[in-house]
Amino acid sequence: MSSSELKNDRILRAFQRQPVDRTPVWMMRQAGRYLAEYREVRAQAGSFMGLCRSPELAARVTLQPLERYELDAAILFSDILTIPDAMGLGLNFVAGEGPVFEHRVKTAADIDRLPQPSAEKELRYVMDAVAACRKELAGQVPLIGFTGSPWTLATYMIEGGSSKTFAASKSLLFNEPEAAHRLMAKLADTVADYLNGQVEAGAQALMIFDTWGGALDPVRYREFSLAYMRRIVEQLPREREGRRIPVTLFTKGGGQWLEDIADTGCDGVGLDWTTSLTDARRRIGDRVALQGNLDPCMLHANPEVIRREVARCLEEFGHGPGHVFNLGHGIQPETPPENVDAMIRALHELSPAYHDAAATSATS
Amino acid sequence: MSSSELKNDRILRAFQRQPVDRTPVWMMRQAGRYLAEYREVRAQAGSFMGLCRSPELAARVTLQPLERYELDAAILFSDILTIPDAMGLGLNFVAGEGPVFEHRVKTAADIDRLPQPSAEKELRYVMDAVAACRKELAGQVPLIGFTGSPWTLATYMIEGGSSKTFAASKSLLFNEPEAAHRLMAKLADTVADYLNGQVEAGAQALMIFDTWGGALDPVRYREFSLAYMRRIVEQLPREREGRRIPVTLFTKGGGQWLEDIADTGCDGVGLDWTTSLTDARRRIGDRVALQGNLDPCMLHANPEVIRREVARCLEEFGHGPGHVFNLGHGIQPETPPENVDAMIRALHELSPAYHDAAATSATS
Repeated sequence: MSSSELKNDRILRAFQRQPVDRTPVWMMRQAGRYLAEYREVRAQAGSFMGLCRSPELAARVTLQPLERYELDAAILFSDILTIPDAMGLGLNFVAGEGPVFEHRVKTAADIDRLPQPSAEKELRYVMDAVAACRKELAGQVPLIGFTGSPWTLATYMIEGGSSKTFAASKSLLFNEPEAAHRLMAKLADTVADYLNGQVEAGAQALMIFDTWGGALDPVRYREFSLAYMRRIVEQLPREREGRRIPVTLFTKGGGQWLEDIADTGCDGVGLDWTTSLTDARRRIGDRVALQGNLDPCMLHANPEVIRREVARCLEEFGHGPGHVFNLGHGIQPETPPENVDAMIRALHELSPAYHDAAATSATS
Repeated sequence: MSSSELKNDRILRAFQRQPVDRTPVWMMRQAGRYLAEYREVRAQAGSFMGLCRSPELAARVTLQPLERYELDAAILFSDILTIPDAMGLGLNFVAGEGPVFEHRVKTAADIDRLPQPSAEKELRYVMDAVAACRKELAGQVPLIGFTGSPWTLATYMIEGGSSKTFAASKSLLFNEPEAAHRLMAKLADTVADYLNGQVEAGAQALMIFDTWGGALDPVRYREFSLAYMRRIVEQLPREREGRRIPVTLFTKGGGQWLEDIADTGCDGVGLDWTTSLTDARRRIGDRVALQGNLDPCMLHANPEVIRREVARCLEEFGHGPGHVFNLGHGIQPETPPENVDAMIRALHELSPAYHDAAATSATS
């Protein structure tokens, strides 16, 4: 497929801070439980991982939000925990509890014993899902591939699932920093192979979710989370099919460290809703694109409130390119789908005023 | 009791950024479940609220950590949810679930119907506990009184307990801002009366815990949380028994808003572990004292690691007065008590080098 076949490249242009006709938009977890049509396919798949493992079903749910909403990107339907699962930890999703691993990483020996699953073998099913998504999309919008950050993956591997305090994972960093570094390095290199595989299979932009980086102190954040995201970025292909493959880093709760995140060599920085887009643009917006940052809870508000807040986000970022509109975290399962429509309609109506009318929306 | 009877005023001096001989220390939740002697009294009390309601038992657990550790302050043993409970919402603590209210605030009518419990009547038992603590302390160290912030209290009242997303409480702010303002105003004025009552009863320093302020976007944080903490600060007595009553505001996750917090008229700003003390001092440390900020998870580390991290905290704040050492959040129930000892010993050994040797530790 040649690059000219991409019908809408707004988001790729925005990640390069090139002019666009309106602010592009996608939503974290846009293919998900808030959609009845997703829940139907999910039920059909039997299990969450069964859905991730079926390229056909994963592609079907990946495209669902695009049938409802005028979005500027699709994001692969998958999970951040595919890598720990492929390392043999045995991932299950328990209703009401979230992800639970059969085996936990407890000792330095456990770390050294972990295999490095490859994109071509153990994680082949994800690459097949990427290829299936790309085929189904047929150039409608770009496909975003993704991963969890090494630190975020490590928390689940060490805690055995979700955690409130991350006491066990932090204890590893504090008490056995060398073993912790070996774990992060192994994860970073596995993630880099995984993302390279996704690009090979057709992903046109990449996203690294550092969901739990914000739970760390600044010293440990830089040493154990950020350093390994940088190590991944350094191993990524920066161009394919004649286009730049933009990579976005998102540390939830990382608003105090935006300068450091922007310095990793990434193209975009994801923002949660606790950072004002004005401040973020002033601090780093001359170097990278900014992605975000409506509070997902805002989608429980009335449509007129949603419209006002979309207007506020646009005004906060201000005029010119470099803004990829998104929520500040994943869309919540309880979100009324019609409120998403209100958000996207408001964005489409209000955002052209912040861009030059002459900008094109696609290179073709 | 005259002010000269206070044997250790380090913490009061530190809150005024006056010279001290070493960095004073207390811990959030220092009277609590990590101590076997606490668990014994808690069992004896029957229920958590039973313990809060007994001045004798509350005073006993308030003093327990002082018997083990050389701390520079006691903090009243109580709960942030005494006010919503006294508003008739019916507070219970359910094992594994935390606080649960029998009744939730759902509508504007519910808000307008809420009574304003008074320090002299419905909350008299808290004042009696303060008086009992003060009596038992006999001038050993100052007694800190406390409250939850209006926004933090409101989240529990609206959600009916703890929450991950605060979807219901945020929906009130978004969709019914006028009703939300009436709720915050009612809570702020009740809190102000409550804190004034605590000072009357003997509290020598005050602390406002804004545990969930960091879940808000900057606009809503300023409008619904910070503004009402300022409204409380403005109603507080600033001096008693010839001494300043310092008030500290702590917004967990509020590292991006320190300047605004420092501008409320407070004496101290609490920091969680995500903000470097160096940055915080550069940004606001010329105006207020800083309290914090060791990650409570650090108390799961080895004693030598704890010592190194205490040293790092001291070095980050640097030389001179204005630092009250604390954790960045409440001590965790699973903390080994001997690790607290390691932390406090390290602080007592290492901190005098950051202060002028000539400084006194008490005015008497």
